[in-house]
Amino acid sequence: MSRVDGRDNNELRKIEIIPHYITHPEGSVLITVGETKVICTATVEDRVPPFMRGQGKGWITAEYSMLPRATEKRTMRESTKGKVSGRTMEIQRLIGRALRSVVDLEKLGEKTIWIDCDVIQADGGTRTASITGAFVAMVLAFQKLVEAKKIKALPIIDYLAATSVGIDAQVGPILDLNYIEDSKAQVDMNVVMTGSLDFVELQGTGEEATFSRKQLNELLDLAEEGMLQLVECQKQALGTIAENIGISKEEVNRL
Amino acid sequence: MSRVDGRDNNELRKIEIIPHYITHPEGSVLITVGETKVICTATVEDRVPPFMRGQGKGWITAEYSMLPRATEKRTMRESTKGKVSGRTMEIQRLIGRALRSVVDLEKLGEKTIWIDCDVIQADGGTRTASITGAFVAMVLAFQKLVEAKKIKALPIIDYLAATSVGIDAQVGPILDLNYIEDSKAQVDMNVVMTGSLDFVELQGTGEEATFSRKQLNELLDLAEEGMLQLVECQKQALGTIAENIGISKEEVNRL
Amino acid sequence: MSRVDGRDNNELRKIEIIPHYITHPEGSVLITVGETKVICTATVEDRVPPFMRGQGKGWITAEYSMLPRATEKRTMRESTKGKVSGRTMEIQRLIGRALRSVVDLEKLGEKTIWIDCDVIQADGGTRTASITGAFVAMVLAFQKLVEAKKIKALPIIDYLAATSVGIDAQVGPILDLNYIEDSKAQVDMNVVMTGSLDFVELQGTGEEATFSRKQLNELLDLAEEGMLQLVECQKQALGTIAENIGISKEEVNRL
Amino acid sequence: MSRVDGRDNNELRKIEIIPHYITHPEGSVLITVGETKVICTATVEDRVPPFMRGQGKGWITAEYSMLPRATEKRTMRESTKGKVSGRTMEIQRLIGRALRSVVDLEKLGEKTIWIDCDVIQADGGTRTASITGAFVAMVLAFQKLVEAKKIKALPIIDYLAATSVGIDAQVGPILDLNYIEDSKAQVDMNVVMTGSLDFVELQGTGEEATFSRKQLNELLDLAEEGMLQLVECQKQALGTIAENIGISKEEVNRL
Amino acid sequence: MSRVDGRDNNELRKIEIIPHYITHPEGSVLITVGETKVICTATVEDRVPPFMRGQGKGWITAEYSMLPRATEKRTMRESTKGKVSGRTMEIQRLIGRALRSVVDLEKLGEKTIWIDCDVIQADGGTRTASITGAFVAMVLAFQKLVEAKKIKALPIIDYLAATSVGIDAQVGPILDLNYIEDSKAQVDMNVVMTGSLDFVELQGTGEEATFSRKQLNELLDLAEEGMLQLVECQKQALGTIAENIGISKEEVNRL
Amino acid sequence: MSRVDGRDNNELRKIEIIPHYITHPEGSVLITVGETKVICTATVEDRVPPFMRGQGKGWITAEYSMLPRATEKRTMRESTKGKVSGRTMEIQRLIGRALRSVVDLEKLGEKTIWIDCDVIQADGGTRTASITGAFVAMVLAFQKLVEAKKIKALPIIDYLAATSVGIDAQVGPILDLNYIEDSKAQVDMNVVMTGSLDFVELQGTGEEATFSRKQLNELLDLAEEGMLQLVECQKQALGTIAENIGISKEEVNRL
Repeated sequence: MSRVDGRDNNELRKIEIIPHYITHPEGSVLITVGETKVICTATVEDRVPPFMRGQGKGWITAEYSMLPRATEKRTMRESTKGKVSGRTMEIQRLIGRALRSVVDLEKLGEKTIWIDCDVIQADGGTRTASITGAFVAMVLAFQKLVEAKKIKALPIIDYLAATSVGIDAQVGPILDLNYIEDSKAQVDMNVVMTGSLDFVELQGTGEEATFSRKQLNELLDLAEEGMLQLVECQKQALGTIAENIGISKEEVNRL
Repeated sequence: MSRVDGRDNNELRKIEIIPHYITHPEGSVLITVGETKVICTATVEDRVPPFMRGQGKGWITAEYSMLPRATEKRTMRESTKGKVSGRTMEIQRLIGRALRSVVDLEKLGEKTIWIDCDVIQADGGTRTASITGAFVAMVLAFQKLVEAKKIKALPIIDYLAATSVGIDAQVGPILDLNYIEDSKAQVDMNVVMTGSLDFVELQGTGEEATFSRKQLNELLDLAEEGMLQLVECQKQALGTIAENIGISKEEVNRL
Repeated sequence: MSRVDGRDNNELRKIEIIPHYITHPEGSVLITVGETKVICTATVEDRVPPFMRGQGKGWITAEYSMLPRATEKRTMRESTKGKVSGRTMEIQRLIGRALRSVVDLEKLGEKTIWIDCDVIQADGGTRTASITGAFVAMVLAFQKLVEAKKIKALPIIDYLAATSVGIDAQVGPILDLNYIEDSKAQVDMNVVMTGSLDFVELQGTGEEATFSRKQLNELLDLAEEGMLQLVECQKQALGTIAENIGISKEEVNRL
Repeated sequence: MSRVDGRDNNELRKIEIIPHYITHPEGSVLITVGETKVICTATVEDRVPPFMRGQGKGWITAEYSMLPRATEKRTMRESTKGKVSGRTMEIQRLIGRALRSVVDLEKLGEKTIWIDCDVIQADGGTRTASITGAFVAMVLAFQKLVEAKKIKALPIIDYLAATSVGIDAQVGPILDLNYIEDSKAQVDMNVVMTGSLDFVELQGTGEEATFSRKQLNELLDLAEEGMLQLVECQKQALGTIAENIGISKEEVNRL
Repeated sequence: MSRVDGRDNNELRKIEIIPHYITHPEGSVLITVGETKVICTATVEDRVPPFMRGQGKGWITAEYSMLPRATEKRTMRESTKGKVSGRTMEIQRLIGRALRSVVDLEKLGEKTIWIDCDVIQADGGTRTASITGAFVAMVLAFQKLVEAKKIKALPIIDYLAATSVGIDAQVGPILDLNYIEDSKAQVDMNVVMTGSLDFVELQGTGEEATFSRKQLNELLDLAEEGMLQLVECQKQALGTIAENIGISKEEVNRL
Repeated sequence: MSRVDGRDNNELRKIEIIPHYITHPEGSVLITVGETKVICTATVEDRVPPFMRGQGKGWITAEYSMLPRATEKRTMRESTKGKVSGRTMEIQRLIGRALRSVVDLEKLGEKTIWIDCDVIQADGGTRTASITGAFVAMVLAFQKLVEAKKIKALPIIDYLAATSVGIDAQVGPILDLNYIEDSKAQVDMNVVMTGSLDFVELQGTGEEATFSRKQLNELLDLAEEGMLQLVECQKQALGTIAENIGISKEEVNRL
């Protein structure tokens, strides 16, 4: 039995990353993963939140939202409800944490990078598309800081991208689940990795199901395959800027 | 002295309306007015709010929001603040009220049309662009209802569009203000009109300034000029659907 | 056919403005317009909000509320609901904006005037009565500042008052609508003008109806008639203080 | 040493109760106690809250608020803060509880009486003035129900009024404290009593002070003196309606 | 007829106060009164709230909460509801006010003591148990300050404890009501007293009932009996620390 | 180099699970893991949330909170802030999801199990202790349902427990991190597993660090060791009830 959209088990959906999609932000992209579309922007603020002050280090924080009709049925706005849902908070914290793991915050200095990921169309994998797109938007913003001579070099230790893997009862382990696949998967795992295939976040969940260590290993193999292609897309979107990424943490410190 | 972007005083910015921009909603457009870009969607719900029940009439309600980096400086999300600002509420009420004025709510029957206007890039005139785009998204949603035989004909009495006019201390009365013009205008007026050039809403404000009745008349002349062009753009976006619009209220009632 | 309360189409309801109605505030009035009663107070604060600091200019801001039983049916308190309605915010913004248009904010200096309009009985026209009454309360507060030698002269450029006009299907264009008239009017327009009959705000709305430019002109004629009488009432309430109002902006600057 | 306003220790401030002060509510008064002024209204709703349904009994609930400039310094609106303060809640609960104690809720039937007490000018004793005024407003609303033949007789068991007593370090035990007296009192006690001088509520507080049982007795003697005068004022405000009050609970049940 | 749990009318439930119950706080106890269990902690903060600054005096504030299943039926969390109930606020204000009455705030200096009372099991009398336990937790925290030489002596003027008394229709006046007794009591009174049997707070309420001055006196007699036993329990929990309490206010000032 | 508290890298802290700790709930425990103490309760409600109705299945939902002084420094209450933090929501969702994975929701029938985890003392690992304790509380509640003949058998598919593993820069991979270890760990992973050592949740995070696949495997080996001991503790706490757990899903369906 094959996947609902005919893809191979280890096949990503079509990815497109359009840089400089919005005029005002320091960095911005529109990332498209199959039918999922997310506008990711990066804003530079010249100070850090109170709990970080005086340490000489930067901070990266993220906000995530969906337009009401990004989804099949209209979703009530969180501004109208007057509160941000648990799901949204979980995703925001994940995006911020993931991005911080590949940035040399000391080299960044006392600045905050605000990442905004706004889903304008949703078909599964919105949080992983957000991370993959936000990484590019953030690098574009860093590049502006370099050009404005506010930092010496891109404070980036490695590439960062994310995808989902899961287990479908009929099809088995699959890569990059769309909404329908995600809804019926027994196990759903979001994997955030660096360009060197190290883990940054691993969030595997069996909803009313469990998974064995052997299955875990099959899923991680698929995730690695997907990661290599996602980083390739990021490189194409970044063009010549990409040449300055991927240097080791030690090298960045020496700049 | 001429306008900041070289336009004639009675010249609109470049308008583009892309229909069916988002997959899931019953109707959707991306409207671009100069650098202002708004995603407008129309959602059909098969019931009306409690205060309208049992009257056999439909309802149209609107929500409006801006992405944090639609603006020059990042704006805090209203979901994060936990409340919707006064400005947002004023705009939402305006959009809903304006659209209701050209719809035969009895012909629509007990349905709610949810209009969502999400500004992804802002350069002045976001509320008027929202109304102009939302009208098209709403007609597309009505067309789906007609095709699904849920209503007999488009319950539309006339076209509806909106633009701004204002008075610049140096340049005089001008049409379709961009953000810079809006910031320094002495008088700012939003005009919502039908295709027959009747008024639906007229909101003129002198912030720390006033305006005479003569000036009011000059501004209204400009608004009429702009309206005719906006309706032309709406017709192009609607294509063949446009042929079914513009019939009189009496004709709609007879269908 | 005549109006529900027998008035002529161009006749205001009975107006009464009682100055110094409440003990504590720097300025206060009880304004009665027919059955509508509003307590308007003006409070002086010796600083401006953050966005105005260091500019040497003053600020005027307004809050508006209705007692729960000001209305025919009890209205739930906004404090109990935990949020201020869109309607309230719209009115508050309108009152503040209108008052600022006739005050020389530089002459006022870095002070905030808090205007509070609390409707204790409502019968239509609460927002226009609020503006007309708040102007007097504000002038009384300014007079206290003059007497305390905190400002040299009343920083008032002109009188300011407001009324409503509308179109009734049977009666035609009418001035100063009460609640019943307002509920069934096809067109409702709030007009805020100066003593010199210049416009400050013009908000015309056709709810499920539209209006022509000819009708607009008839409505504005009525509004001008009403304005002259309202300013006369304000003068009587102010007594001798009224003699210091109405000087031109240039004269104020020279003081 | 004598009181700040020259009153005797056992002297109430001047009381005035104006019935039918507001047009719309079923019952309303303006109560003035010295410089304290409160608008009290009573609204009849033909149902009870969910936790009371099906018991055949009525309910009485109260809301209390102060206009921002009722006080010496402007107080921020609770609607603007988005939440009701602890003080307000305490007072609301007190007013409702007190009124319920003299009403035969079974005779009232499944109705809710909403009491609104809005302080338009405050000089101490706002909660006790609210109770004293609300009792009259409630009786007026009950009288309307009797006249509309919705209830057979006033479901009132006894009069209800409230006052404050306290201990001033210099002056000793005093009755009906104004704001200045209240601010410096060592002990402050609110007493709610029936016309028969039974207690309904007794709330005595020593803020950074304590009081002995002997002092308690002196305070209660003063409270009883005040109560008799307050009930007299209520009788005058009620006029001929007063003749139907004060019958015993047993008599009400027999009606 | 006797009480539901067989106690004499003047008999307290079994009391236990375990000091140092929680590791982190400066002072903490678990107080058990019958089936009611409350964790009371005292936290020392080296500053006072804004309204107290610069007066050289300390402040004591309290928060109170119940675990959802402290009660017979699960109670919704106030954090989930997004607001603190009126009942909670009333209790919090009571606890703070009561504790402040026996502390020499000047001797404490500019420090805030945060009292947290968390009910883990509820069977009536949670607010009085909270006060009785919080007093001990607060003294333990003061003792730490003495040992750290941050204050010279315990700034405590007297013991403080609280209990409830009430009138049961069948049983008559009773001491220390449990939940069942509280639910059916005609009159419920919380009494907070010092070790010298002076009153700090007296809150008597007749819910749909009233009480005479004679009944008041019977209730106060019972309360005094209970108080003496409660203070005895506090002394045992404090051990040798207890020797430094109970000195007069004058003596504290002389230290 | 060894761990701060001298434990071996693969050594759990001391565990204690006291069943029936609170009187009112259907199930309750106090779980102690080192210095971390959590009260876990399970409440049975005879209906499911709206989105689950009519499916014949049960639901399990969890709430998590910390007393303000569970922590080293006092934490502000979420009820006082008026909103639940992102961290709390993440933990609540995790606990609910984890418990649902080992319950046969169809056998449970249309009931909701409310799990409350209230941390009274915190020293790291509060979410994993909550899951381990909540499982026991839930089984105790199920046992009550069995005894009341509301369900035929415990609808439990397997044991469920949780622990944390992490990488310390000096000490290497470690099991069951306390607060100090958690604060300085490069990688922190929460593992929720069944008694059969299948995964339910796997949440690994590198905060400003990453981890390799080899390291992941070392961590998972440690987690398995810990799990076996935790399940042993659960069995002891459950006593004879434990005999009815661990049957396969297929067997439960056959009951």
